[in-house]
Amino acid sequence: MDETETETGTAAQPRRGRGRRPAAQVRGEVLEAAAAMLFEGGLASITFEKVAARAGASKMTLYKWWPSPGALAFEAYFSAVEETLAFADTGDIERDLTAQLHAFVRLLTKQQAGPAIAQLVGAAQTDPDLAAALSRSYTHPRRQLAVDRLRTAQNQGQIRPDVDPQVVVDQLWGACYHRLLLPDEPLDPTFADALITNLLRGIQP
Amino acid sequence: MDETETETGTAAQPRRGRGRRPAAQVRGEVLEAAAAMLFEGGLASITFEKVAARAGASKMTLYKWWPSPGALAFEAYFSAVEETLAFADTGDIERDLTAQLHAFVRLLTKQQAGPAIAQLVGAAQTDPDLAAALSRSYTHPRRQLAVDRLRTAQNQGQIRPDVDPQVVVDQLWGACYHRLLLPDEPLDPTFADALITNLLRGIQP
Repeated sequence: MDETETETGTAAQPRRGRGRRPAAQVRGEVLEAAAAMLFEGGLASITFEKVAARAGASKMTLYKWWPSPGALAFEAYFSAVEETLAFADTGDIERDLTAQLHAFVRLLTKQQAGPAIAQLVGAAQTDPDLAAALSRSYTHPRRQLAVDRLRTAQNQGQIRPDVDPQVVVDQLWGACYHRLLLPDEPLDPTFADALITNLLRGIQP
Repeated sequence: MDETETETGTAAQPRRGRGRRPAAQVRGEVLEAAAAMLFEGGLASITFEKVAARAGASKMTLYKWWPSPGALAFEAYFSAVEETLAFADTGDIERDLTAQLHAFVRLLTKQQAGPAIAQLVGAAQTDPDLAAALSRSYTHPRRQLAVDRLRTAQNQGQIRPDVDPQVVVDQLWGACYHRLLLPDEPLDPTFADALITNLLRGIQP
């Protein structure tokens, strides 16, 4: 698709030709290109130069919009998976948590997405810019989606009012990250179901 | 201490002089040196050459014992924190989980240890040798300590027999790792207490 579009521009000035696209469209195409490259070649394959070339955008634009290739990679990742992370609200919190957590486990165990997110989280541990981007573009909005749904359930009397929804996020999605990043036990739908049962019913007799 | 010991050896052949130490002692001293270096300078400061020099051991011995500097770093880390991870058994699972999880949170938020373990887990995401060492020398034995204590509680009727203790590990210690590696909410004793309360009592009304 990108190829065709480039061919319609002036061959000698493809960037000027493509520069007429609205900024939001360019941004979307850059994010799509970065996500595809992340899934194909991992974090190491993401440079401003290569992503700009693939998206037919100016390298300078990328420098202006993102503080580092890692920050671009995170935003690209979140855009690519945002739909998967969305929450249904059927009115039944157990049902909605189960559907969401099954989708999340499928995402984390996908051949490309799982290692890509593990690599991004890993790289953030030694890169303060990437850590800031991880929190801003991924961890924080992802938490918020879950907290909003859990608060609704609290208002409907399905979760005790004294429970902090943020802690529930760590005990459901955080527990899945633990199995992704420190793998030792299976990360599968049975695990997701056990997480939800333990929390909703409690583990005491 | 190491200095003094080296001075008692033949100055020109310190390694041969130190080679008389039993292997278990050398191993212990190498692990101590590596842990100290890890806490001082992070994972990047750990090379076989530098650790060997600090421990007064032969570089060849280190190559023989560990597949990579990262594998050495993990074992050093686990040795250094093993005591903190040990479990009391007072007969009251809530009390013992609280004591252990408070100690674990203190460890993860210590100025040196927290970033060191975050870096190690991070580096393991792109280094298969390090990932294998992480699982073998850290994740697996740490899980086992907790699972053993939880099984005892199950046998004493303090935890339901149908609960998988491995899943509880992800919902307590894994949840703490989630706040360490994807920081967005505080990692403190209040959080540890909320983790335990949610799980023991359940989050439903």
